[in-house]
Amino acid sequence: MTDITENLNRQFALPVELKPFQGAHHQTPWLDDQQTKHQRKICPTLEQVIQKTGLKDGMTISFHHAFREGDKVINRVVACLAEMGFQGLTLASSSLMTCNDVLIEHIKSGVIRRIYTSGMRGKLAEEISNGLMEEPVQIHSHGGRVKLIQDGELNIDVAFLGVPCCDEFGNASGTQGHSNCGSLGYAMVDAQFAHQVVLLSEEIVAFPHMPASIRQDQVDYIVPVEQVGDPAKISVGAARITSNPRELMIARSAADVIEHSGYFKTGFSIQTGSGAASTACTRFMAERMKRQQIVAKFALGGITGSIVDLHEQGLIEKVLDTQCFDRRAAESLGKNPNHVEISTHVYANPASKAACCDQVDIVILSALEVDTDFNVNVLTGSDGVMRGASGGHCDVAAAANLTIIVAPLLRTRIPTVVKHVTTQVTPGENIDVVVTDHGIAVNPARPEIKERLEAAGMQVTTIEALYEKAISLTGTPKPIEFTDRVVGIVRYRDGSVIDVVRQVKPME
Amino acid sequence: MTDITENLNRQFALPVELKPFQGAHHQTPWLDDQQTKHQRKICPTLEQVIQKTGLKDGMTISFHHAFREGDKVINRVVACLAEMGFQGLTLASSSLMTCNDVLIEHIKSGVIRRIYTSGMRGKLAEEISNGLMEEPVQIHSHGGRVKLIQDGELNIDVAFLGVPCCDEFGNASGTQGHSNCGSLGYAMVDAQFAHQVVLLSEEIVAFPHMPASIRQDQVDYIVPVEQVGDPAKISVGAARITSNPRELMIARSAADVIEHSGYFKTGFSIQTGSGAASTACTRFMAERMKRQQIVAKFALGGITGSIVDLHEQGLIEKVLDTQCFDRRAAESLGKNPNHVEISTHVYANPASKAACCDQVDIVILSALEVDTDFNVNVLTGSDGVMRGASGGHCDVAAAANLTIIVAPLLRTRIPTVVKHVTTQVTPGENIDVVVTDHGIAVNPARPEIKERLEAAGMQVTTIEALYEKAISLTGTPKPIEFTDRVVGIVRYRDGSVIDVVRQVKPME
Repeated sequence: MTDITENLNRQFALPVELKPFQGAHHQTPWLDDQQTKHQRKICPTLEQVIQKTGLKDGMTISFHHAFREGDKVINRVVACLAEMGFQGLTLASSSLMTCNDVLIEHIKSGVIRRIYTSGMRGKLAEEISNGLMEEPVQIHSHGGRVKLIQDGELNIDVAFLGVPCCDEFGNASGTQGHSNCGSLGYAMVDAQFAHQVVLLSEEIVAFPHMPASIRQDQVDYIVPVEQVGDPAKISVGAARITSNPRELMIARSAADVIEHSGYFKTGFSIQTGSGAASTACTRFMAERMKRQQIVAKFALGGITGSIVDLHEQGLIEKVLDTQCFDRRAAESLGKNPNHVEISTHVYANPASKAACCDQVDIVILSALEVDTDFNVNVLTGSDGVMRGASGGHCDVAAAANLTIIVAPLLRTRIPTVVKHVTTQVTPGENIDVVVTDHGIAVNPARPEIKERLEAAGMQVTTIEALYEKAISLTGTPKPIEFTDRVVGIVRYRDGSVIDVVRQVKPME
Repeated sequence: MTDITENLNRQFALPVELKPFQGAHHQTPWLDDQQTKHQRKICPTLEQVIQKTGLKDGMTISFHHAFREGDKVINRVVACLAEMGFQGLTLASSSLMTCNDVLIEHIKSGVIRRIYTSGMRGKLAEEISNGLMEEPVQIHSHGGRVKLIQDGELNIDVAFLGVPCCDEFGNASGTQGHSNCGSLGYAMVDAQFAHQVVLLSEEIVAFPHMPASIRQDQVDYIVPVEQVGDPAKISVGAARITSNPRELMIARSAADVIEHSGYFKTGFSIQTGSGAASTACTRFMAERMKRQQIVAKFALGGITGSIVDLHEQGLIEKVLDTQCFDRRAAESLGKNPNHVEISTHVYANPASKAACCDQVDIVILSALEVDTDFNVNVLTGSDGVMRGASGGHCDVAAAANLTIIVAPLLRTRIPTVVKHVTTQVTPGENIDVVVTDHGIAVNPARPEIKERLEAAGMQVTTIEALYEKAISLTGTPKPIEFTDRVVGIVRYRDGSVIDVVRQVKPME
């Protein structure tokens, strides 16, 4: 056969050099041995798997944050890398939470040199805001993260992905096993794009564990671990359910805005963010949908039990889920055929061939600050310290037909509506309505929305009036003093820099 | 912001140059317009879509063959390309059938210069065997095709994929719409790897058509067409159901082999090829499984109604489906949650991170010829002319624990068991048992199988004895005379050349 292939290579301009057959298992040696054939991906310890991946100093490691405050993977893997002596790594987690405070020591010791994340909370965020890192942290949106990966800026060498359950080939899902977090929408991206994929799995079940969220052709290694996360802690923090009367009042106003916006008709689509008021708004919509016999085509994004309720009542046809915000959502994903798991690539990447957010009519989003140009800050507090996340905020705001911000006018005597946001995350051109407990403002760029609300008898004020009201109650806040040093770079969903976070001047 | 990004670029060794924000829709201009936002992928005609893709002479186009003899896409697209004046294209269809005879004229006129396919039938195969093409046709297996794509030898510029139904973003499946072919296992590969993906769709439904087999992030354009295929013709030819008593007898013997092979126990897995006898064997297995209370873990590959029957009777837990061989299989895929669609990448690519075929215990495959070294030919007839397909034959044979070939000893007085196969497609080292209507032979490399069958009272003979029996009935066939010219290159699943097909000497 060698002579023949040599002849063929000479005779034809083939795209590759043809080589002769050298035996059935020449390129698949694992097929010669039953044990290797089935178990070759399984690795007993984290140390061993890290060695197998060939990870080196300066490379990029990634994680997902589906377990949110209950995550047990990020800290554990970074601790292991620290013990093994790694230095100068780029940490690319889809987000970071207060549970990740221990990363501070690994930044100090040089294990982690650069961070890409949607956001940060707690002590870690505070320390980074105060200048912990030599290089500024890169803050991206959920959709924007995938674009950074596609563009090669975020070049993930090894993804460490915690899953409750997979088979010996790596077919994994988040809806079965003990610690079921539901959608693996973030992890699906890393599984698709990372050079090497390591699953940390609580349970290894018999092949085939299919259909799977992360597929066997994406997985290099599997490490059995006792716990990857505590699903009970998913709904802690941003994803909590409110009984606060002020939040409920805002939620009811937002439902009024939706009802009279012109977009509330059968076939509409909706996304509600993870904030308490926007989640509560979902519940107020249910009664209006029933009364008016309106059925939504789909709900998108991070999914709560409230959205599942509407789906199970037949009020929302499909649920497209990047992240389950509570146990009820995770359970629904496992059993409702029209509750569909999607990756953040499909959800909101502006450079994907199509992003679901482009189909959304109405989105309800929260804010730490909104300014009189409708710019929104969801990242820094009024003290200039990072304590939030970009999330899908600017992604869906850019794409939806109606973007509603829900926020209290004041938070512990600090105005939410301000002259200029401390940090711009979502540009005002994409914000249509601001709903507060002191009134509703409509972006002048959307006069038709204002007209519809007023025609329905609703009171509409201006954003300037809301601002004046706020400072009349609190006085003009003293401006925060910053140093020149940049501690955070806020990337818009398309990768451009929309703002930077500077280090706050230490108190004297 | 420009000054700031310039400073940051200077100050830090960032992986890319940071650029300032230039407006929310700067990189997503379609979001400015409702019509463009939703309809930008839809193209009214094939001509227009071809222009949009920027396809050029010499590039590679691809197709799937899920509709088998009922396909209405390949001929239509190639005719359109011919009309538009394209030349020198590489045609990469997952397979070609007798329905593709019209391609002959497009090869003659130079529109198609090179072909990659799993197989060929009819007039097209005959003409190519007789020297129609300047360059030999490249024959690959289903798994091997994906490896050729991954290795860059098959670099698909534009995939034209017929689907019965998709939404305006390109979320497509084969289980809904009018011409539902079932699994899109071949097309899923092209959707994943091709530079550009064009869907030809019979029906464009409202977003979100999810879960989808081909996803929106994989699709560039959608062309509405009246018919992409006739599902009634899927089971014509290789996938027919037999009532031939000789085939049924072989099928029953194969079921006996399975029963006593040592692999027939709860949790076993199986693949049956598309041949009539192997399909029939499935039915004989059902009674044995019920009698012995044996449940299979999964069935793999091209799926028939007979496999679905076993699944619905609870005898097979999961069905992993790359191709539906009949309407019953397609219907099952649409409704049975444990009937799972998989791509040929996941099915059998030896270079994938894991191939399902590696998990198969028992496979039943057909053959045009088997030789005394157990090598198998599924491509050329005894006249040396191509009339078959490589399919998943060598993929699953290489990986399964027990590979059984079912074939009649003679076909219209021509021996199936021969001294040397006309064309080697699957190496004998991977064949364990040959079942004919004149006896069963076990590969001497598997003495334990022979022992088990004999212990169960079965008659086992040798492959040489089968060969002697054959020629005693027909006489030694006159050897075919070939020219030196290579008309087909048979690629093993790993890309190496396992054999070539030479042009048959014209009759004098």
